[in-house]
Amino acid sequence: MRKVAIVAGGATKCGRREASWRDLVQEAGKSMFDSVDNISPRDIEALLVGAAQPERFTFQVHVAPMVAEYLGITPTKVIATTELMCASGQAAIRYAWACVASGMADIALAFGVEKMYMRDMAEAQTNMTCVLDREWDGVNGLSAPPFFAMTAQRHMFEYGTTKEQMAMVSAKNHHYSTMNPIAQFQKEVTVEKVLSSPMVSPPLNLFDCSGITDGAAGVILVPAEDASKYTDTPLHLIGSGQANIGNVVNNLASITEWVPLKLAVEETLRTAKITRDDIDIAELHDCFTISEIMEYEAFGWCEKGGGGAFIEEGEPYIGGKVAANPRGGLLGCGHPLGATAILQAIDVMQQFRGEVPKGRLVKDAEIAVTQNLSGAANVHSIMAYSRSPK
Amino acid sequence: MRKVAIVAGGATKCGRREASWRDLVQEAGKSMFDSVDNISPRDIEALLVGAAQPERFTFQVHVAPMVAEYLGITPTKVIATTELMCASGQAAIRYAWACVASGMADIALAFGVEKMYMRDMAEAQTNMTCVLDREWDGVNGLSAPPFFAMTAQRHMFEYGTTKEQMAMVSAKNHHYSTMNPIAQFQKEVTVEKVLSSPMVSPPLNLFDCSGITDGAAGVILVPAEDASKYTDTPLHLIGSGQANIGNVVNNLASITEWVPLKLAVEETLRTAKITRDDIDIAELHDCFTISEIMEYEAFGWCEKGGGGAFIEEGEPYIGGKVAANPRGGLLGCGHPLGATAILQAIDVMQQFRGEVPKGRLVKDAEIAVTQNLSGAANVHSIMAYSRSPK
Repeated sequence: MRKVAIVAGGATKCGRREASWRDLVQEAGKSMFDSVDNISPRDIEALLVGAAQPERFTFQVHVAPMVAEYLGITPTKVIATTELMCASGQAAIRYAWACVASGMADIALAFGVEKMYMRDMAEAQTNMTCVLDREWDGVNGLSAPPFFAMTAQRHMFEYGTTKEQMAMVSAKNHHYSTMNPIAQFQKEVTVEKVLSSPMVSPPLNLFDCSGITDGAAGVILVPAEDASKYTDTPLHLIGSGQANIGNVVNNLASITEWVPLKLAVEETLRTAKITRDDIDIAELHDCFTISEIMEYEAFGWCEKGGGGAFIEEGEPYIGGKVAANPRGGLLGCGHPLGATAILQAIDVMQQFRGEVPKGRLVKDAEIAVTQNLSGAANVHSIMAYSRSPK
Repeated sequence: MRKVAIVAGGATKCGRREASWRDLVQEAGKSMFDSVDNISPRDIEALLVGAAQPERFTFQVHVAPMVAEYLGITPTKVIATTELMCASGQAAIRYAWACVASGMADIALAFGVEKMYMRDMAEAQTNMTCVLDREWDGVNGLSAPPFFAMTAQRHMFEYGTTKEQMAMVSAKNHHYSTMNPIAQFQKEVTVEKVLSSPMVSPPLNLFDCSGITDGAAGVILVPAEDASKYTDTPLHLIGSGQANIGNVVNNLASITEWVPLKLAVEETLRTAKITRDDIDIAELHDCFTISEIMEYEAFGWCEKGGGGAFIEEGEPYIGGKVAANPRGGLLGCGHPLGATAILQAIDVMQQFRGEVPKGRLVKDAEIAVTQNLSGAANVHSIMAYSRSPK
């Protein structure tokens, strides 16, 4: 298995964009190709496109060759779209990684794109009811906000987690996103503002929830031994973990303990040959504030149920035990499904390169993880990256 | 890169099924796991699900974990859905292959499923207008039948191909499918019957077109060195090719010469270290009769434009130059998008094992290819398989 590195990345501004799906693809593609001198679209051998719901949001399937055409790419080895809902972008990175690691391709592009704003936003909401099993959960009105609200309620009941602690996650991530020019949300959000924002699904207020977002992003993967041809500061892929148990909410063993996440964490540490304490930056999947709190626990940075106290004690901030979401997270940056994991990877690369504003720079960071959950948190996907080759 | 083999496969009966998407998944999964003694669902480390249009046909996304749950699988290494429209199943095989070849997983399941019959078949037809670029081609009414009709018209004009020659493809494939118990179509179709069947889009009559089909199938991939643990007769993956040029129909260099297919053929021969004359069985993508004729040409078994004469001279039958679609093809077996490539692989395995009825058995076959096109024939995907390790 060849070692693999990311040598270039580019993205759109994220948010409610007056831009078509196609515009987003071109904006991100241009940004990416402009950032690297000696890779042109014609050099891309493998193209993997992470797209969660293009059929519903833009009534378009077979989107990978559309991305290829819009970017001037003619894939000669591999082409496909990958779907894993909120982790669709990570699925693209992982397939691209497998292509390069196995030797099937030497230059692979993992691209992600989602156009979520529709003229009729009621249709957009309806679209998202097909994420969970519709015959068992969707039919009962279960979509993401009520599922995570139920999770939060139970976590509060079992562990005494408070709404204030959850709100601190939102305040932290919105603070960092004010220093991220491509983030959807650019204003500070205080704990008080979270708590007084409109109720979405109790106990989750509006600012406990990540947004509906348009966005696109791409990263180029090559064998690590070739990376120096393209950049002095590649991002090294050093490990990963991905696990799934169950799907229908009734079948989950527990909603306050994400067993697949614990498995994915262990696999990531094992394959990357690191300990949890080696992780300097964690780009966590904070689709809702409660998620990030449970992720502190699953990564083992605090005890089970201790996620609320962990943030209250200042641990997941820059300078604390682990810098959680110094990018601004999904809460601050938005969550353009297929693009999210790719945006995370790009920000980690920029962190390692020292290219992010001082206020959110994690100095001397060497190891980072990016994590995505999907569905009823029944699938968890993690990538581990390092600044130096390992 | 590790060598990889398929050690088990199972599928549903294909056709207009009084079965839900879930029923199809379970029927194929049971068939597959029943066929192999010492692999249980819990052994599957990587699950790749080929599904082209689950969002439109069943209003369901995040389908890979649904397949996992319905089959009792708990993937511990990799999980994703792959979409490449009509080649979605091959995309699943290819990603599973990359997982095993790279060492990311030791037991991978490539599964494919499509439920295409809907209560409202007008909706099903509308769904398929989102395959080509909707803003450029879909808006002009271009979906698969008129695209391939245009292709056929031009091929007839440029090369003198006749409707009778095209009808012979349909008659051949329907003949073989009468000997395939899981095929959608079980009756002989004569050339006369093709020519007198209702006109779909000139010059394509009904029996020039593959059907709307419900179906599912799965194959299990392991390192070739482990294959003997599970079967004495594995199917060896020996090479592949995949290429894409363009997307919007106006941008195709030619509609009667599929350049990406020629590139994919060359790459397949190169990676498999075979010549085109070594190929005993070719499971070709005969979504329309004209496709198969053009595929004879692109594989180089006859000269450009000679595809019509090639079948008239009896070459693509068992006993001829190459056995094309002895399974019955998409025309005879149906085309359940995400499952098609997997059904092709299973039939090749059964051919090599001598498990198919005599009338469609390719005796002493050693090398096979399976091919899928997608979109406006702008993407072509090929796998090469052998009976013996190479």
